[in-house]
This record gives sequence, structure tokens and C-alpha cells, in this order.
Amino acid sequence: MSPEVKTPDPARRSERSRQAILRATRELVSEVGYAKLSIEAIATRAGVGKQTIYRWWRSKGAVVFDSFLALSEGADGMALPDTGDIAADLKAVLRATVAEFADPAFEAPIRALNLEIAGDPELAAQYRKKLAGPVDEAKKERLRSAQRAGQIAADADLDLALELLYAPLYQRWLLRSGPLTAAYADALVDHALRALRP
Amino acid sequence: MSPEVKTPDPARRSERSRQAILRATRELVSEVGYAKLSIEAIATRAGVGKQTIYRWWRSKGAVVFDSFLALSEGADGMALPDTGDIAADLKAVLRATVAEFADPAFEAPIRALNLEIAGDPELAAQYRKKLAGPVDEAKKERLRSAQRAGQIAADADLDLALELLYAPLYQRWLLRSGPLTAAYADALVDHALRALRP
Repeated sequence: MSPEVKTPDPARRSERSRQAILRATRELVSEVGYAKLSIEAIATRAGVGKQTIYRWWRSKGAVVFDSFLALSEGADGMALPDTGDIAADLKAVLRATVAEFADPAFEAPIRALNLEIAGDPELAAQYRKKLAGPVDEAKKERLRSAQRAGQIAADADLDLALELLYAPLYQRWLLRSGPLTAAYADALVDHALRALRP
Repeated sequence: MSPEVKTPDPARRSERSRQAILRATRELVSEVGYAKLSIEAIATRAGVGKQTIYRWWRSKGAVVFDSFLALSEGADGMALPDTGDIAADLKAVLRATVAEFADPAFEAPIRALNLEIAGDPELAAQYRKKLAGPVDEAKKERLRSAQRAGQIAADADLDLALELLYAPLYQRWLLRSGPLTAAYADALVDHALRALRP
């Protein structure tokens, strides 16, 4: 048996409850959708009391939001790989994104979150500030490194650059308008880099 | 009096009810939004019974979908302008799209429709078949003309080409992640064409 079981620790137990709640929230959003999700169902699934949830979050929206935030925290280091080869690095990242979207357990809650954001300007602003903004900043750091290496135009608009790389993938996924494959990820990177060449 | 009035024709009367329902649906989606739209309100506005609507459509989403489809049927000629200058023609079209998205009366129902489609794979497939597919085909015709003129690579993937042109604009609009301006439309076209150059 592991030492954790022998020495009970309230902080550790709290963190375990928090993680169970966030995991239950993500699962339930996927299974029943945001509209039908209830705090009660989250509590039951996570094996905690409703009051435990209300002590930490003010609303259903807040738990759902944090449940997604937690996913990216776990990823640790949003920094993109930097091998010096911008094409290879971006292809690795976009192939990984394609693979994630192919996994229903991952894509269903992300879809639910996107529908919420698209329908709610205030949530969209929060999402940009807390999640999309920092992630985009990490991606831009990699593009800046490529600019210094002369692989991307020094005056490139990096917001537009990220959109060229990711928006086609996002739209194809959201509207289910075409196959999401590794070859597609590669083609996207090749086209975007051609558009951004010095 | 016109002959139509003298000889009642059930088919014609049906068509008139259908058009009234579709018009009422579009008006109400703009006025109250998709979420608050009810079949009852559509029936009242259109001057028909609820059963008439349920005889033709299985759900609220289905009526809304057909109400948008009816718009594009009327539009006739989805062809893009062809002055011989692909950059100028695409900029004119993307600037017009940007202007449409700036109009709340236009963008609110389109947003509602997109959320429906993103959440319903069957509706998404219908949408592609009946609406997005034919519109994309018209756009590809203009790209093929540019290929013949040597302005776009002969072996360019035209699905990817359309995504490079439109997906960044779509994503920025849907997630409200940045300003939609004429300058942005122009920059998108310039970047996409650079990516697609022979």
C-alpha cells in the first residue's frame, strides 16, 4: 500500500475531491451536455456533497470552466517544442491536436465549451483572458523564435499566423466538414508557412 | 381578380403556408433568438396551426434550417465575381462577408444556426449537402478560373484553399476573438493567395 493511505492529509484529501469534481464535470458535460448538467449530478458522480462544490464554485458555469482549465494545467508547460525546425515542430503539435479531436472523451466537452462560448460574449471574454490568451501567447513565442531564425517574416502578424494554422482545423472539426488526418495537419502547416515566409 | 383566387388549389395554399412559416421563423429567430423561439410563436406569427408545422418538420431546428435554406434558394446565382483579378474579387467577397457579420440582424440567426449545426451531426450533414456544399462549389469555380489564369497552383487543394480564406474569419467571428475589418479581409486574401501561389 502506498504511504498516502497510511497518513491521512486534509490538504491532499481536498485536492483529491477537487480533482474528482472536475473530472466528473468533464465526463457529465460530454454525456448529457451543458444544459442538462446539474450540480447534484456532479456531486453524486464525484462522491462529494453539493455543499463541497458550492464552497469552491459559485455556479455551474464556473465549475465547467475550471474543469477545462484543469486540463491545460495538467499539460504543464504550454510551450511548444523548439527543435529549430518550425515546420517539424508545428506539424508535431497539429498532429497531436488532430489526434485529440479524434478522441470522443476529449472532443465532446471541448465542443460543449465552444458552444457555450460562442453563445455567451461574457464567457468568451473570460475564456480568452484565462485560457485561450495564455495558450496563444505560448504559441506565439515559438513563432517569434522562428522569426529570429529567419523562417517566418519579421513583420508577420502573429494573430493572423495562428488563425491560418489553427482556424481551418477548428472549423473542420466544429462543423464536421471534412476528415481530420495527420496529412491534413501537415498540409495546413506547409500552407501557413508558405503564406508567412520572409 | 386573378384566376388563382377563383380556383382554390391545395398545393398552392400549402406552399403559401410553408412560405409564411419560414418567413415567421426567420423573423422570430432574429427578434428573440433561437433559444427562446417556440413552434407556438411561429404558428401564431404565420397564421397556421402548430400541427401544420409538425406535419412538415420534426423539430424547431429543422424549421430554422429550412428557413435559411429558403433564403439561399431565392438568392439564385451564388457565383463569385470574376473580373480576372482573383485578389480583388476575393477581397470584395470577404469584405462583404465582414460587413454582413457586423449586422446583428444578420449575424444573430447565423450564429444560432451554427450552434445548432455544431451540436447536431445529422443537421451538420444536411447543412453541408443542401447549403454549404453548393455555396463552396460556386466558390471553387472562381478558384478554378484563377488556376486556369495561372494565379493559383494547378494542383492546389481547393477545400483547403477555401478553409484558408474563410476559416480564420469564421473563427474570429464565432469566438469574438478579434476585430473584423476590411483590412483584415484584405490581409486574409493576401496570405491565402501567397500560400496557394503556383
